[in-house]
Amino acid sequence: PTKDRFFAPYAIYKGKASLSVQPVLPTFAKLDSGYLKVARRGSMMLTFVPAIGERKYDYGKKQERLFSFVLITILQNFALSATEIGSLISMGPNDSSEFFHDPGKLSSTDGQVRKSLSIKPLANSSGYFIGLTVVNNILKTNERFSVPVTTAEFAVLKAACSFALPHIMGWNKLTNPPAAGSAVGS
Amino acid sequence: PTKDRFFAPYAIYKGKASLSVQPVLPTFAKLDSGYLKVARRGSMMLTFVPAIGERKYDYGKKQERLFSFVLITILQNFALSATEIGSLISMGPNDSSEFFHDPGKLSSTDGQVRKSLSIKPLANSSGYFIGLTVVNNILKTNERFSVPVTTAEFAVLKAACSFALPHIMGWNKLTNPPAAGSAVGS
Amino acid sequence: PTKDRFFAPYAIYKGKASLSVQPVLPTFAKLDSGYLKVARRGSMMLTFVPAIGERKYDYGKKQERLFSFVLITILQNFALSATEIGSLISMGPNDSSEFFHDPGKLSSTDGQVRKSLSIKPLANSSGYFIGLTVVNNILKTNERFSVPVTTAEFAVLKAACSFALPHIMGWNKLTNPPAAGSAVGS
Amino acid sequence: PTKDRFFAPYAIYKGKASLSVQPVLPTFAKLDSGYLKVARRGSMMLTFVPAIGERKYDYGKKQERLFSFVLITILQNFALSATEIGSLISMGPNDSSEFFHDPGKLSSTDGQVRKSLSIKPLANSSGYFIGLTVVNNILKTNERFSVPVTTAEFAVLKAACSFALPHIMGWNKLTNPPAAGSAVGS
Repeated sequence: PTKDRFFAPYAIYKGKASLSVQPVLPTFAKLDSGYLKVARRGSMMLTFVPAIGERKYDYGKKQERLFSFVLITILQNFALSATEIGSLISMGPNDSSEFFHDPGKLSSTDGQVRKSLSIKPLANSSGYFIGLTVVNNILKTNERFSVPVTTAEFAVLKAACSFALPHIMGWNKLTNPPAAGSAVGS
Repeated sequence: PTKDRFFAPYAIYKGKASLSVQPVLPTFAKLDSGYLKVARRGSMMLTFVPAIGERKYDYGKKQERLFSFVLITILQNFALSATEIGSLISMGPNDSSEFFHDPGKLSSTDGQVRKSLSIKPLANSSGYFIGLTVVNNILKTNERFSVPVTTAEFAVLKAACSFALPHIMGWNKLTNPPAAGSAVGS
Repeated sequence: PTKDRFFAPYAIYKGKASLSVQPVLPTFAKLDSGYLKVARRGSMMLTFVPAIGERKYDYGKKQERLFSFVLITILQNFALSATEIGSLISMGPNDSSEFFHDPGKLSSTDGQVRKSLSIKPLANSSGYFIGLTVVNNILKTNERFSVPVTTAEFAVLKAACSFALPHIMGWNKLTNPPAAGSAVGS
Repeated sequence: PTKDRFFAPYAIYKGKASLSVQPVLPTFAKLDSGYLKVARRGSMMLTFVPAIGERKYDYGKKQERLFSFVLITILQNFALSATEIGSLISMGPNDSSEFFHDPGKLSSTDGQVRKSLSIKPLANSSGYFIGLTVVNNILKTNERFSVPVTTAEFAVLKAACSFALPHIMGWNKLTNPPAAGSAVGS
């Protein structure tokens, strides 16, 4: 009903970096038939920002003007797909997960930037380390972020991901699908 | 609020076939009393499509015109009822389920087409095989599909089915039901 | 947005009786302050109907005109409160629950009609018996209903109750509550 | 769609005090970019009220006029943050939690009022004690509330908190977030 756009990340601030999480909804394109089909998939966007002092995080506001090159490497995103969210929400207290993305896939920079997100249990099941490694062969950079996440914070992530998953899949716009072609029903 | 119809299946592409899943909402009919009652039940539609090459799936677009007979047997659907969805979402990692449908039930083709959907755990709890067998005594065909589904993909299916279940039951349109007749309250 | 009223019970048909379940939303009354407060609590309405033949259930349509007295005892309702729903959704596979209601409580018929709903596990964790006993000292009747419910059907009941619970509590109308009086914040 | 404000707490009435729970939604402020950002975080508000007689609770209506000083200490609130809600909803039957708040934090009364909320399992896993202690060095008061909560009531709290959490985080207003600056995508 409203066209307002909201910015409401769930942010976890820790010593060396912050991790903030917010869903990105899919976009839709109209088919000839009049139906809307997912054009760009939704995701859960994880954003890592390094701390530049005690409890200060460099969101690159001023830097954006002064050192726009530096900014590129200051923030790092990782967009979890629906299936990767499924992996996260089904993790038990001692499970690990690791996901690999290549942002240049199928483009001219295929294989040049490699991102990996790892979720590893902390000792005595007291939470998880969520880490991001970005190896950029174009900029010759190698960045690492690691944010310890408590059991309570991870419970929020799981609950929020479970809530957001159908929206990321576009299922909150549920309606009857196109008649199932000439396939046999039931 | 909007009349747009959305097409947003959750699709799992594997070597020999793809499985895509999308809810079908119930339809309602107006009763004399003015109340709307479920006319056709909702379901979770599972669609199996065979792969016709490496990572290509035959959705029958062109074929629809050229070989409309063939298309009939290319796609196969299986519509899970609310109770069958309840069975799926309550499955533990080592549980199996099997569902049987007769699309011609109570019609002149009663018993001529038999469909069975089976969900069986993979070795070492790493996911499930979701298989569909369709025996069609009219066309003298016997088709089998089998799609291995990872734990993460099954977690998406479970979460998506849990989200969709109340919509499939029509409960997202919740409102106060008709006064409980002359029955004793409480 | 719509004023239509929907009738979409989840019904379980078994040999001797059917059990159908549908939420009843709370009603609200406007306070002097302009706030809306719950006037009548919501509930999950369970309706038991005896089978009057093989797979036929007596919903009392015709009877309503002919034998309106009989109808009173044909249907029996039991309205689960929010806390009773909490009890149901937290039941493990071997747990039992029993709830007692007095529909005439605090009225002139206090204690004259006693209803008890029991949920008991079936052998080998294959589901539950859901039974209702109604002892009516005014009509000198004593009715019993018992419906065996499979694990899958109970999973639907749990999922549907979990979905409906916030609606029954009125929390789907969430908004900022009245300023917290003169109480100390935080 | 409606501007009506609703008052629909989930209330647990016990011998010495009542505990009522209702979410408080976040407020949003418009950024220069046109995006809405969370201005004041949402929370789950727990309100403890002492019983002033058998099953009567002192909501301070009359007292508010007569003894406004007394009222200040009659009600006590505790606003759970998103992460504290995460802690509550991930509690197992034998887990404990304790949360500390300083309502005067970063103000001139920093450290003068200390609130602690504790959730402790009852014997034989039959529920929890939810207790609030408020030490007010300004008023020289020390208040304690303790409400025994059954397993069923706690299940309602968990389910209601799980439902409310995304609303408290502002995620029910989900939409596509601002373009991710100049950060590398994927």
